[in-house]
Amino acid sequence: MSNTARNPRDVRMRGFASRTTVEDAWSWLDDAIQAKRSSLGTESIPIGNAAGRILASNVHSQVDVPMFDRAMMDGYALLAADTSGASNYNRLRVSVIGESFPNVPFDDTVATGTAVRIMTGSPMPKGADAVLPAERTESSDDSQSVELLGEVPSQKNIGFRGEDIKAGSTVLHAGRRLRPQDIGLLSSIGCADVTVVASIKVRVVVTGNELLPRGSVPTGYQIVDANGPMLSALVSRDGGVVVDDSIVPDNPTSIAEAMQDDVDVVLVSGGSSVGQEDHAPRLLAEHGELAIHGIAMRPSSPSGMGRLDGRLVFLLPGNPVSCLCSYDFFAGRAIRKLSGCQTDDRHWNYRSVRLPLARKIVSQVGRVDYARVAIDNEKIVPIAISGASMLSSTTRADGFVIVPADCEGYAPETEIEMFLYEG
Amino acid sequence: MSNTARNPRDVRMRGFASRTTVEDAWSWLDDAIQAKRSSLGTESIPIGNAAGRILASNVHSQVDVPMFDRAMMDGYALLAADTSGASNYNRLRVSVIGESFPNVPFDDTVATGTAVRIMTGSPMPKGADAVLPAERTESSDDSQSVELLGEVPSQKNIGFRGEDIKAGSTVLHAGRRLRPQDIGLLSSIGCADVTVVASIKVRVVVTGNELLPRGSVPTGYQIVDANGPMLSALVSRDGGVVVDDSIVPDNPTSIAEAMQDDVDVVLVSGGSSVGQEDHAPRLLAEHGELAIHGIAMRPSSPSGMGRLDGRLVFLLPGNPVSCLCSYDFFAGRAIRKLSGCQTDDRHWNYRSVRLPLARKIVSQVGRVDYARVAIDNEKIVPIAISGASMLSSTTRADGFVIVPADCEGYAPETEIEMFLYEG
Repeated sequence: MSNTARNPRDVRMRGFASRTTVEDAWSWLDDAIQAKRSSLGTESIPIGNAAGRILASNVHSQVDVPMFDRAMMDGYALLAADTSGASNYNRLRVSVIGESFPNVPFDDTVATGTAVRIMTGSPMPKGADAVLPAERTESSDDSQSVELLGEVPSQKNIGFRGEDIKAGSTVLHAGRRLRPQDIGLLSSIGCADVTVVASIKVRVVVTGNELLPRGSVPTGYQIVDANGPMLSALVSRDGGVVVDDSIVPDNPTSIAEAMQDDVDVVLVSGGSSVGQEDHAPRLLAEHGELAIHGIAMRPSSPSGMGRLDGRLVFLLPGNPVSCLCSYDFFAGRAIRKLSGCQTDDRHWNYRSVRLPLARKIVSQVGRVDYARVAIDNEKIVPIAISGASMLSSTTRADGFVIVPADCEGYAPETEIEMFLYEG
Repeated sequence: MSNTARNPRDVRMRGFASRTTVEDAWSWLDDAIQAKRSSLGTESIPIGNAAGRILASNVHSQVDVPMFDRAMMDGYALLAADTSGASNYNRLRVSVIGESFPNVPFDDTVATGTAVRIMTGSPMPKGADAVLPAERTESSDDSQSVELLGEVPSQKNIGFRGEDIKAGSTVLHAGRRLRPQDIGLLSSIGCADVTVVASIKVRVVVTGNELLPRGSVPTGYQIVDANGPMLSALVSRDGGVVVDDSIVPDNPTSIAEAMQDDVDVVLVSGGSSVGQEDHAPRLLAEHGELAIHGIAMRPSSPSGMGRLDGRLVFLLPGNPVSCLCSYDFFAGRAIRKLSGCQTDDRHWNYRSVRLPLARKIVSQVGRVDYARVAIDNEKIVPIAISGASMLSSTTRADGFVIVPADCEGYAPETEIEMFLYEG
């Protein structure tokens, strides 16, 4: 390190002096996510758009659900006592004095010896205390009376007022990620809008003077940006909202400006390492906090993260495979946790399977490896390492395995957990 | 059945004469999905909107990726032979004759005894056959020369033209559900738009004269529609697009009209059973094919399905819990499979865990049960059965378990698979 003073420009081309472990990076990150979470705003949105969003405050019901006693079966509303002793061999007959349909109740009272035809969900008529299901009855030709072929106990086949939800009760608690059935429940208690945690706004900052925007044809020494479109798709998948993912000129002023957009999370793709053109780490350190830079993992070791005026900022390597890996380990973790996609017991937004390895996987103790793998014949096959830098290695792969830092790798036939890219 | 002729109105209040097994229903449905799949249209969309969509045709690359040989490390492009014997104790010096940056190549030729500073991703200069990483070099104060502290073999740390993707090769195959990294890959080969299978258009037909639209306050004997908003959220989760989910007046003409909307899938909520006001099964049989009606399961046995002029039509019980269950078993299966969310090895769009049961679950042989359960103390706790008809039972639950038709239930402490509503 003695040459640091002599030639700082050169020193920036050197490797990292030391690397943070993935565990330590996660530990810093989880604290930062927790702090960020408490500063997120809220918004009121129609319930029809609220599935998957996080409830910002408890929801209480103003009403009973149902608001009236109702039949839970198609059949006859009657007095349970009138069915006493009824069977196929002892048919009891009662008069049918009317009908109750949904929103068209029977307005009179059911007395002993009478019954009201009733449909599921219809209001129970006064006097009746049970519903005898239609399949245990036989109505007369003129529908003026009905034979009872079975007994029914009092209160049976009735849904009582407030049975589902009582007025004044808390139906859903703050912090809950709303499920489709929650949306149904909110609708049933008369909620039109609901207050949810504001969406996580994300700025994707893609740097690189050689880059052409998506939709361009690559030409000469210019290549078309892969990371911006990939990161945008990842952010959307994880519940964030990309407000801008345009390419930024590779100069410190433009990058620093883009890092200060009005968003919750900034992803900087490219220029994350220690080379002379790697502006992002220095800029983050100057304008905010570069908490972590250089991580003991492969790929993606030139990753960094920190904060800038309340934004979480992630520095992602420009190599597309490293970019994907770094996103999923760190930036994606933050976006998933903040948007509610990821719970504490779940590191990844991928489904996993356990399968035996077809060939060994070699790693180094002290370093976490993210290895792309395929499935062949119900076994996990590592993708050739020569493709480490190639995006096509992640499109040929069926998923990935993580080799932890305390592990030298796995022998053939070891059964390990594999995460599926198909989700 | 002798009274059928006498009073058809009454007969329609009776139960199902027989019920189809869930397996048989799935078998019919999977064939119908397969037939439907072949008739789906395609559309061309920008790659930025294509993640999660199904590719309709193979994609070939018109270009090599990369289009030029490039450095894979920051360091010095040179002749590998010039590093022969270099080490910390045998420093070899070469002249630095220029720099290569991304899109700013070095235009001259590297000869023996010279090197070009090069950044990752930059074009390799002519003459050079390897990159010695910066961390194995030490540059002079004036940057005019560099000391080599290690050897590098020929071809090392170079990404060769076409190494990632060769021009003319097929990069992605028809039928693939596009992943975020696929979007990156498509961008890198110059794709602006991509042809995908058209979205699955879904009409949600909610029937019931007692129903008020979402956003209303329940009043009198009217209740607010829960199923429409819930089904719309489920369809969106599963990759379908709801084109209309309005409430339809409970009369045969309106329902039949709604069933003939220009969509791929029709979900009819309510009126699916055999009661006198259950119009949907008869209408489907009249206008199309009522393939299955009545299924050996609990809840949701009054479910049905069939086809109408190429549409898949699902009849869902009006009870919200049954509606949710019936959706996930049948309609959701179709939408997930058609949209690519669901693969053949995966029945549900829920993550599952295996945990022991805290209490027994009782079922009946011959019937599939869908039981709402909670997790307490790392055990599965069934939700009280009295709530079978209540939507709040699905919001209180953490998920569900499936008791297969050949099973009488499970004893306490049995470890079983539970599907998590949180997904």
